[in-house]
Amino acid sequence: MPGLTNTAAAARKPDMSALAALVDSDLKRVNALILDRMQSPVALIPQLAGHIIAAGGKRLRPMLTLAAAKLVGYRGERHLALSAAVEFIHTATLLHDDVVDASDLRRGLATANAVWGNKPSVLVGDFLFSRAFQLMVEDGSLEVLRILSNASAIIAEGEVLQLVTANDLSTTEEAYLQVIGAKTAVLFAAASQIGAVVAERPEEEVQALARFGQSLGMAFQLVDDMLDFSAREAELGKAVGDDFRDGKMTLPIVLALKAADETERAFWHRTLEEQNQTDADLEHAIGLLRKHGTLEATRERARFYAEDAAAALSIFPDQPIRRALLDVVEFCLQRGY
Amino acid sequence: MPGLTNTAAAARKPDMSALAALVDSDLKRVNALILDRMQSPVALIPQLAGHIIAAGGKRLRPMLTLAAAKLVGYRGERHLALSAAVEFIHTATLLHDDVVDASDLRRGLATANAVWGNKPSVLVGDFLFSRAFQLMVEDGSLEVLRILSNASAIIAEGEVLQLVTANDLSTTEEAYLQVIGAKTAVLFAAASQIGAVVAERPEEEVQALARFGQSLGMAFQLVDDMLDFSAREAELGKAVGDDFRDGKMTLPIVLALKAADETERAFWHRTLEEQNQTDADLEHAIGLLRKHGTLEATRERARFYAEDAAAALSIFPDQPIRRALLDVVEFCLQRGY
Repeated sequence: MPGLTNTAAAARKPDMSALAALVDSDLKRVNALILDRMQSPVALIPQLAGHIIAAGGKRLRPMLTLAAAKLVGYRGERHLALSAAVEFIHTATLLHDDVVDASDLRRGLATANAVWGNKPSVLVGDFLFSRAFQLMVEDGSLEVLRILSNASAIIAEGEVLQLVTANDLSTTEEAYLQVIGAKTAVLFAAASQIGAVVAERPEEEVQALARFGQSLGMAFQLVDDMLDFSAREAELGKAVGDDFRDGKMTLPIVLALKAADETERAFWHRTLEEQNQTDADLEHAIGLLRKHGTLEATRERARFYAEDAAAALSIFPDQPIRRALLDVVEFCLQRGY
Repeated sequence: MPGLTNTAAAARKPDMSALAALVDSDLKRVNALILDRMQSPVALIPQLAGHIIAAGGKRLRPMLTLAAAKLVGYRGERHLALSAAVEFIHTATLLHDDVVDASDLRRGLATANAVWGNKPSVLVGDFLFSRAFQLMVEDGSLEVLRILSNASAIIAEGEVLQLVTANDLSTTEEAYLQVIGAKTAVLFAAASQIGAVVAERPEEEVQALARFGQSLGMAFQLVDDMLDFSAREAELGKAVGDDFRDGKMTLPIVLALKAADETERAFWHRTLEEQNQTDADLEHAIGLLRKHGTLEATRERARFYAEDAAAALSIFPDQPIRRALLDVVEFCLQRGY
């Protein structure tokens, strides 16, 4: 299995700098394309879209498309517009994820929503989603359209399943894995896969990249769900404990419930199922997760997927872009934010 | 110009029964397809989607696709899935239109939202929107994908423009026409057009059907905006005056503002721009619209578009399906609900 046991990677703190350097010129063009294609005569659209796209962070998903295309030796330009399409789909889901119900308003909002409200967030998300499909249609590959329309449907299913399982203590580990597989990993998989599709590479490589993305996405989300309890807020860039307050049944909680005694179960019942929380409850919850070692268990589960992601790349020859992708895997696993 | 002066149509109250009868067997298959393709292992999705699709009313847009295909003599089956895709896009926009901000909660809700909240409405809308694209990808026509992805982007722009112009007394007639052209007429146009696209008919027929749908959609929305002030509630199936309470700048209002004296302008300023309304204000507003004849003027404008829609059909030979479509034009114009 390449890379995760690589001594160079183990010796230093892994980051995304090698990947960023290798796709830098492509990413600049993708960013220009994103800016260009989020324009509209309706000024609120680029305003609101710009707010979230500028704050959008790592550009991890479009970088996966660029990196995958580079990994398979693609020489054309089609990956640029499709990389932008991937980012538009991701941004649309972020905007729709910002939507709140009146009952959520007890908490402060720190999203596009806080400035503009639910409705513009939904409609601008719809616009970006449509733009993504326009970009794919301009590209003209029905296979790419198939991959990303399937991914979009599965993402929506995953988000609904997450809503349905929230506050439900009977949520299984399996249901949790289904949620994150759908809401997060499927877009990582699609983003990676289309790099090989535009290069018209053999099915084996397309599938290897799909597996790489899917497993990387699982590792990424598992660590995200762990960090929601364990990160330092300044590093996370958002409030620690959001998932707890939302009653999201993430793996650290699901595992803690399995190990809970009667008193602990009553605590989870009150705080998650009845949504009756006081300020001190988050700290108590974190104490229970630490007592049962579920944060470490979650990171271990992430390691399992990270190793699978790395293994999926083994069919490709060793080269700088492969090493950079292995760094990204390790970064997603070890990151503290 | 065919049809609108047709004596048979003039002698009786126009309705959609002739169209419904002619596309009945196709529509049954489309309804079965809609039911089948809104399924998901996540049970809340078909529950919520079923709620709105069952309540969805006339199925006007998918019937336009079926009718257009029939009008041009199409003999295949591709129009069925695409007709379902059109209905899914329409349903997604309805669900997203249901999303409210906390400030709207002063009014009662009578939507999917009232039962399930904002977030499920948004996510199930996203699911149906994705399903629409999956259906198009299965069909395999990039031209249809182009038409409906363009339509979706324009619909979102129109909805945002409607939000932006709400409560803004300086909204022009031109901006209003732009809003309804985008949020409503574009999907009528796309729905009609793709009936000729699947039949691989000459561009002249594709464009004639696009023009038919666009103008019919304009007439439909103009009448809708008039009925919001003048319908009887039992017939409209929703509260009269919703647009007024939302501060939507529809044509009856835009024209009344043009004709307003100083006192009237102060009234519109308070009720629409400041959103400071009392229960008696709606009746006073309707009085002002009647005084300046703006409801009739709006119907007249609708008649202009209805005549254009009818004229667009003149390139097709006279036959039952063309007469049925002309009936629908007249129905959209004269309907009281």
